Amino acid sequence: MSQGKKVRFSYEQLNALCMDAFQKFGFSEHDAATITDVLLTADLYGIQSHGMQRLVRYYKGIQKGTMKVDAKPEIVFETPVSAVVDGHDGMGQLNGVFAMNLAIKKAKKSGVGIVSVRNSNHYGIAGYYAKMAARQNMIGFSSTNSEAIMVPTYASKAMIGSNPQAWCVPADPYDFFFDAATSVVTRGKLEMYNKLGEKLPDGWALDAEGQPTNDAGAVLANIAAHRGGGIMPLGGSTEQLGSHKGYGNGMVSELFSSILSQGLTSNETMKAGKSGICHGFMAINLVAFGDPAAIKAHLSNYLQSLRDAPKASGQSRIYTHGEKEAAFVKDRKENGIPVIDKTMTEVYDLCDYLHLDPHKYFGDYEPPKAGKMFTGNY
Amino acid sequence: MSQGKKVRFSYEQLNALCMDAFQKFGFSEHDAATITDVLLTADLYGIQSHGMQRLVRYYKGIQKGTMKVDAKPEIVFETPVSAVVDGHDGMGQLNGVFAMNLAIKKAKKSGVGIVSVRNSNHYGIAGYYAKMAARQNMIGFSSTNSEAIMVPTYASKAMIGSNPQAWCVPADPYDFFFDAATSVVTRGKLEMYNKLGEKLPDGWALDAEGQPTNDAGAVLANIAAHRGGGIMPLGGSTEQLGSHKGYGNGMVSELFSSILSQGLTSNETMKAGKSGICHGFMAINLVAFGDPAAIKAHLSNYLQSLRDAPKASGQSRIYTHGEKEAAFVKDRKENGIPVIDKTMTEVYDLCDYLHLDPHKYFGDYEPPKAGKMFTGNY
Repeated sequence: MSQGKKVRFSYEQLNALCMDAFQKFGFSEHDAATITDVLLTADLYGIQSHGMQRLVRYYKGIQKGTMKVDAKPEIVFETPVSAVVDGHDGMGQLNGVFAMNLAIKKAKKSGVGIVSVRNSNHYGIAGYYAKMAARQNMIGFSSTNSEAIMVPTYASKAMIGSNPQAWCVPADPYDFFFDAATSVVTRGKLEMYNKLGEKLPDGWALDAEGQPTNDAGAVLANIAAHRGGGIMPLGGSTEQLGSHKGYGNGMVSELFSSILSQGLTSNETMKAGKSGICHGFMAINLVAFGDPAAIKAHLSNYLQSLRDAPKASGQSRIYTHGEKEAAFVKDRKENGIPVIDKTMTEVYDLCDYLHLDPHKYFGDYEPPKAGKMFTGNY
Repeated sequence: MSQGKKVRFSYEQLNALCMDAFQKFGFSEHDAATITDVLLTADLYGIQSHGMQRLVRYYKGIQKGTMKVDAKPEIVFETPVSAVVDGHDGMGQLNGVFAMNLAIKKAKKSGVGIVSVRNSNHYGIAGYYAKMAARQNMIGFSSTNSEAIMVPTYASKAMIGSNPQAWCVPADPYDFFFDAATSVVTRGKLEMYNKLGEKLPDGWALDAEGQPTNDAGAVLANIAAHRGGGIMPLGGSTEQLGSHKGYGNGMVSELFSSILSQGLTSNETMKAGKSGICHGFMAINLVAFGDPAAIKAHLSNYLQSLRDAPKASGQSRIYTHGEKEAAFVKDRKENGIPVIDKTMTEVYDLCDYLHLDPHKYFGDYEPPKAGKMFTGNY
């Protein structure tokens, strides 16, 4: 399924633009680099919904005041293996990197670090933070809550976020990297179907009465207006296919994020000009279980045996988690990062507003024209 | 769906029988009590597949030598927050209780305890161990691998077990208690359909070519003969409904059980007279994140708001995880534990073989007659 016309730019081009834009937003060079790395890593991994196209959305959050540029994450409770961090409504990426670094520091010293964050914002891809721990020879875990979009089994109203969980563990030739919403799909998938005017597949969404529907536009409008309905948990809407399991896993994300930090649960986020999103992070040092190289080799062997397993008829390949991302990174580094031209229209509009020259980054490229999103004086 | 005729006995009746039987098998009174409590807790929670009906199966495992009565779990690697335990082919329940107690002890002192166990056997319900930690004001997590029955996305061969994960967290009026296979259903569900000669629902099982099938008998026979096929991950067999997510979660169970302990992965278990099943346990002390009472109250409020959410049309109730189990416990304590009469036939046969008088436990109850399973001298 296509998302519209795409144009490719190099990592360096997009990085230069993001760095200048985030600094124009008021972030230090260091913080701009952190946020940019989280964004562009999503694009490198092929998770376009969480990459460049979020730049403009983030700027809107900053303008509205739900994302505070000068917020600093604060440790409000701490032990040698744990911490609770108050994000003070700062950027999710800055809170996320701060909290995962804290978890890693604790895991280096104590073997394990678990950090729960409240009062934050959208933090990009969960997997970014899990990967940080894997680079230190640790199991990395990251989860977040989000605006409620998942309807619990037998409910008619969204009460839980897409609540992704990411796990990353060192392995050869690819880390085990598993990053997935606990809802059957994300809101972004519905937005894609809506843009294209296509019917949703069965088993994804519920109408305002909690009944299955294929109408993406109606579901998105209902979520936005809090009229009920939303996205099904992984496992659908009935217990026969395991709806209660996706719902339960969504709750596990809630535990590590909003419950341990005593922050806002998904159903209370995004109210009265405050996001209040919460995150959870865990780093488990492999040295706490023996020889990290031996553990890594053991996992790598198992992953290889999975890839080598007999294929279903009609299938030529079994993927292990992280393999697709590795292929995306290779492609993006060689051929550039694809960006939807509509996103580029937004980017050029934002550049104009911020008094940045887009041609400095993108040469003579011109995106389709559209009405301005940003008006008035910067 | 019925599983055949059931008869109810009190907890005390079944407990007395199990205690005598396990001691006849050679276990000490203490160990017999531990194994019995895990078994009968499954029955109290309404998870009949993991309760009394396993008694005879366990005895067969002991007879075959895959379960060693005199094995003692051994800590082979340890830090203040972690351990690797070698179960030396002992009973899964004894290894599980030992390992979770060790995790809890570490979490009391250090805030977190993670224990990975190798060379064990079927350990009953994952939730039993998670609940142990919740009773100590901790988040409890327990997972296990098992004989491979889950077919990875786009494979045609089972490579991963049913690999359940259980989480338990203190809450009022019911703990959050979430215990579920990462496969869409367990093998036990297929066995039920097979016994009744009913067609499997769509979205559960795959044939030897990795194609969807509704034939329970053929799937079970294929698994037993290692001819390929098996059960789908939660999310089905295609990425559209999230097959890769159930598959990924199954791998997370593998991480905590077989990978960290460097034990046998699911695809290598149950070979050459050895089970080799591995488990993982985690206890996270709520005091490491602030006031446990406040965290518990925060979770309890959220769970209440979920139960109070608007219902889907046609539904009268939204359950939170642990609520059904609490209702089962109340019913079983008031009205007794239901046992399938076929299981009672097996139990009477086993009693006869062990020179135990079944009427000592079950009064004048007589189960249906059948051919003897156990012959020769005890």
